[in-house]
Amino acid sequence: MKIIDIVEKTVSLKSDIRNAYVDFSQMTCSVVAIKTDFIKDGKQVIGYGFNSNGRYGQGALMRDRFIPRIEAANQKDWIGADGFLDPLKINQAMRVNEKPGGHGERSVAIGTIDMALWDALAKAHGVPLWHLLAERYNNGKSDKRVFVYAAGGYYYPGKGLEALKQEMRGYLNLGYDIVKMKIGGEDIDADKARIEAVLEVVGDGQRLAVDANGRFDLKTAIAYAEMIKPYDLFWYEEAGDPLDYQIQSVLSEIYPGAMATGENLFSVQDARNLIRYAGMRSDRDWLQFDPPLSYGLVEYLDTLKMLEDHGWSARRCIPHGGHQFALNIAAGLGLGGNESYPGVFQPFGGFADNTEVKSGQITLPDVPGVGFELKSNLWNEILKEL
Amino acid sequence: MKIIDIVEKTVSLKSDIRNAYVDFSQMTCSVVAIKTDFIKDGKQVIGYGFNSNGRYGQGALMRDRFIPRIEAANQKDWIGADGFLDPLKINQAMRVNEKPGGHGERSVAIGTIDMALWDALAKAHGVPLWHLLAERYNNGKSDKRVFVYAAGGYYYPGKGLEALKQEMRGYLNLGYDIVKMKIGGEDIDADKARIEAVLEVVGDGQRLAVDANGRFDLKTAIAYAEMIKPYDLFWYEEAGDPLDYQIQSVLSEIYPGAMATGENLFSVQDARNLIRYAGMRSDRDWLQFDPPLSYGLVEYLDTLKMLEDHGWSARRCIPHGGHQFALNIAAGLGLGGNESYPGVFQPFGGFADNTEVKSGQITLPDVPGVGFELKSNLWNEILKEL
Repeated sequence: MKIIDIVEKTVSLKSDIRNAYVDFSQMTCSVVAIKTDFIKDGKQVIGYGFNSNGRYGQGALMRDRFIPRIEAANQKDWIGADGFLDPLKINQAMRVNEKPGGHGERSVAIGTIDMALWDALAKAHGVPLWHLLAERYNNGKSDKRVFVYAAGGYYYPGKGLEALKQEMRGYLNLGYDIVKMKIGGEDIDADKARIEAVLEVVGDGQRLAVDANGRFDLKTAIAYAEMIKPYDLFWYEEAGDPLDYQIQSVLSEIYPGAMATGENLFSVQDARNLIRYAGMRSDRDWLQFDPPLSYGLVEYLDTLKMLEDHGWSARRCIPHGGHQFALNIAAGLGLGGNESYPGVFQPFGGFADNTEVKSGQITLPDVPGVGFELKSNLWNEILKEL
Repeated sequence: MKIIDIVEKTVSLKSDIRNAYVDFSQMTCSVVAIKTDFIKDGKQVIGYGFNSNGRYGQGALMRDRFIPRIEAANQKDWIGADGFLDPLKINQAMRVNEKPGGHGERSVAIGTIDMALWDALAKAHGVPLWHLLAERYNNGKSDKRVFVYAAGGYYYPGKGLEALKQEMRGYLNLGYDIVKMKIGGEDIDADKARIEAVLEVVGDGQRLAVDANGRFDLKTAIAYAEMIKPYDLFWYEEAGDPLDYQIQSVLSEIYPGAMATGENLFSVQDARNLIRYAGMRSDRDWLQFDPPLSYGLVEYLDTLKMLEDHGWSARRCIPHGGHQFALNIAAGLGLGGNESYPGVFQPFGGFADNTEVKSGQITLPDVPGVGFELKSNLWNEILKEL
């Protein structure tokens, strides 16, 4: 098995939504296809990858550094015990001559390629990625059903409370049990009204998570904690700057409910610092590290090992990103679930076309690889052309 | 004053040296020229910038995100109280639609542009950058002489102890008092022999710093600490991964000598975590944050404020990078000194041609801007052509 071509392309993430930090109308995304010489069931094995939303496409870094390192290598050194290309070895090779620290951007470039390598590997084996991961890393155990929540509630121009409620009603009608909305893009009183509007729809605080996207300083983070405490929400996400472990730690002293963070930490070292310093509580808090933004599944395996060493179960992980790759990882490695974007970040957000959400859970298709070919907008509009 | 053109170019950092992590023969560097419509003393004001070594050129990120944001802006909004373009406002504008966390690569792209903006601003004022900084931020006080140390002692193929000693003798002959060498690229016994060889040349442990470039795990970091303790070295630099604050903290318990780190932390948030968690000792340790790798001088000013809030003097800062920009910052803001690469990373390493090192200190030229025009290899080979 040999990589014979790597195609990458930058596409626009057309969207008029925003969170407390980012206007997504300018956002880009990288897609890659890794073409191998391996034929499985009469078909050339090609792996696909893309980076999840929020951190821009990284085609230039791939072209400048990571793809040339793959092309320059002797691929025979990368063959694993199964006779196929080993993503772990290729990940290491991409990171030669990279200094430690500074985990951003390049972690996205490598993570996107890593996604494609795992897709190719599972296809070469002729099995779904979740199956391959369960066999390799989880004693053969995979989850038949995976918890997903509907992430939405973004700000966009002219969106009022009624539109917000309607959006949330739509998610419940799709079969979601738990929804998430943004906070921090307006003042606290306006956000309180937005939260109460959504609670009218979902009925119970445990069916609503709120996400500040790292916007708040300590004082504001505390004020919001006090404001939302009576609602007993499903979680309070990324209140402060993702690297301000002290804010997180202070909140864990004063806020009894669950909190979630991690989508903007892109290495096992950063994740370890969160665990060491942020006072996260392993009995209730959630960790949202997103593999394609963070050097890929290879690094994520190290992160899960680090978590285990610190007494955390993989069940506390619900990755950011709403993509099929993390969904496979959730099912195969027994995570707590996965984010889902029923309404946004198309065609990247979402899962296979025929995926039905029942009581907030979904089942993965039984096809080789990640399953991109079953998500027709992503497949037809983008991946098929690579 | 208006920016009328931004030119950027990626150049190779040709070099056959290596440290414990990086082979520099593949390394690239970005250079930028920011051309303004402002004429000072009959000359168009053009600011220049480049990123210091070790983290690759970032031309693609500049072209994709940061230069377009500058071009799309209404520059009138950026005019400061002095009537000129305000680097603080432009830095903020470049960071619109960037999520928090993930500080690497983009911090280099922005930092490189920031360097050029400060060069232009000082030229518009007709004063050296060190002078402008002293006036704005340091009550008019600047250092007439700045401490510099000679960073070298890299590994390269076939380099033996005799060549290492000769290299170090060369630095002393140039007027340096203190030299730095790499460790961690060979085993501990070989490194011990290398250290002892250099000590034969410099005579006193306080004239030698050693730098592991983040290579060691906890056990190795401790073993090296024990090995070097008797030599009473000037500092022990970046023993462990730059984000592993725990290694640093453990070392500060068992190693009484000075330590140094920070060149691979690229934001005020990361720097603050180092101060919060790494057990660094404000009476003896050194902080090496490098402005052009870290969103520029704008972020560095925030970092100095954060340090002051935590009881650290700016005198404990000796930036990584060996460039004229940090040298100006050191003189103008009263840092502890600056790195110097007398032998490597040409033409970017080093200072104005006529700079004389006396007792390990240098004086800055009194010309407008950073002073790039007085470094003839950098000016003639690269900047002049932009």
